[in-house]
Amino acid sequence: VSVYLVGAGPGDPGLITVRGLDLIRGCEALVHDRLVAPELVAEAPEDALVVDRSALDQGALNDLLVELGSAGLEVVRLKGGDPFVFGRGGEEALALAEAGIPFEVVPGVSSIAAVPAAADIPVTHRGLADQLTVVTGHRADGSDLDFEALARTRGTVVVFMGLSALDAVAAGLLDAGAEPETPLAIVSRGTLPDQEVVVTTLGEATGAGRRLRGPALIVLGEVVRVRSMLAAAARLAEEVAA
Amino acid sequence: VSVYLVGAGPGDPGLITVRGLDLIRGCEALVHDRLVAPELVAEAPEDALVVDRSALDQGALNDLLVELGSAGLEVVRLKGGDPFVFGRGGEEALALAEAGIPFEVVPGVSSIAAVPAAADIPVTHRGLADQLTVVTGHRADGSDLDFEALARTRGTVVVFMGLSALDAVAAGLLDAGAEPETPLAIVSRGTLPDQEVVVTTLGEATGAGRRLRGPALIVLGEVVRVRSMLAAAARLAEEVAA
Repeated sequence: VSVYLVGAGPGDPGLITVRGLDLIRGCEALVHDRLVAPELVAEAPEDALVVDRSALDQGALNDLLVELGSAGLEVVRLKGGDPFVFGRGGEEALALAEAGIPFEVVPGVSSIAAVPAAADIPVTHRGLADQLTVVTGHRADGSDLDFEALARTRGTVVVFMGLSALDAVAAGLLDAGAEPETPLAIVSRGTLPDQEVVVTTLGEATGAGRRLRGPALIVLGEVVRVRSMLAAAARLAEEVAA
Repeated sequence: VSVYLVGAGPGDPGLITVRGLDLIRGCEALVHDRLVAPELVAEAPEDALVVDRSALDQGALNDLLVELGSAGLEVVRLKGGDPFVFGRGGEEALALAEAGIPFEVVPGVSSIAAVPAAADIPVTHRGLADQLTVVTGHRADGSDLDFEALARTRGTVVVFMGLSALDAVAAGLLDAGAEPETPLAIVSRGTLPDQEVVVTTLGEATGAGRRLRGPALIVLGEVVRVRSMLAAAARLAEEVAA
């Protein structure tokens, strides 16, 4: 193997995998997303080539990975979350395969469940949700989403990168007949020390993300109630003990 | 914090998080699922209490966690995959909260994306799938699934624990009008040394899981083609180089 496509996890540097950290510590070149934890970038050997990919478009990035791999270096391509969940890791893998560069995917903790978990929200919960749908809200007008199907889907809906699209997503779902009372949480910078959580409903969501910083994830569905159930249970237990 | 609900990842012990492994190494009691890697159970301190929860139903398990937490022990509840993805971690968290036991969820690498990745299948891929739906196939007759909605959903469908339900799921989806040509992969024991992958189509899937061992996951959708695209690209590159 020459190029490892490694998931860095959702933000907290402790949530990288043991194998991912080992590979960073042994690499000769590290090509990382801007948003991965600086603590993880700092784990690369002192003499390793370290490249922040921010300035590179996907084509130039693919070319760089092929070039470094062709030079025989041990390369870690460190990506936020999981490389194969809205991460364009498949495109990087194809570019490497086409160039005959051996590669391996090392999965990471995806934000899908970890960011809701950091807000005390399980994405599935017996009696509340037995299905999970994950979409991305890259376009601010929500034009890439199928609101008719999403409004009718059962279980939990998670919207990746949903901050700029929140108002359009809420309007689209309500227009398509979704219940305004559906609980909705916005989790900003999940798993990081400056994490913020806003809990509201679909009907009240417009503008609720305005003062939050990205990256953020939207959770929609009855599972959002688990957060307040947990808080209420803990409060009650404290009162009983007092 | 007294009880940590820790995700062990999809199978490969190297895919636990750094934080999860640190907690195991420092715990006083470890309560683990039968299916977590024995290498991880072996990381608990020699004098730690180690309990395989196989013999306990969910109620008895919740009671045990509360009891250990009440005794002031540092407890790790080690669960396969991620505690909050079809893992009933929410129920354990509620039991702890109700008893006034401080707890923390430490997410893990879920099988959702990691097991398909181990079979060279990204669950999302530009131009092939921009949406992911995850369901569980616990009931062998598939009676817990909404086939009408799943047959029409766009993007990738992942069926957790789907081996025993495969035939019923395939029949249900075909009855509901899903395309028989839809690519389908079954990944058995994903990320483990004895992983097996079967690639077929929805129309041909009946019986395809018969000789496989669990746990297994079913991936349905165009993204399954990336596996053969990667293999073909690598073969072609090898021929060009030869």
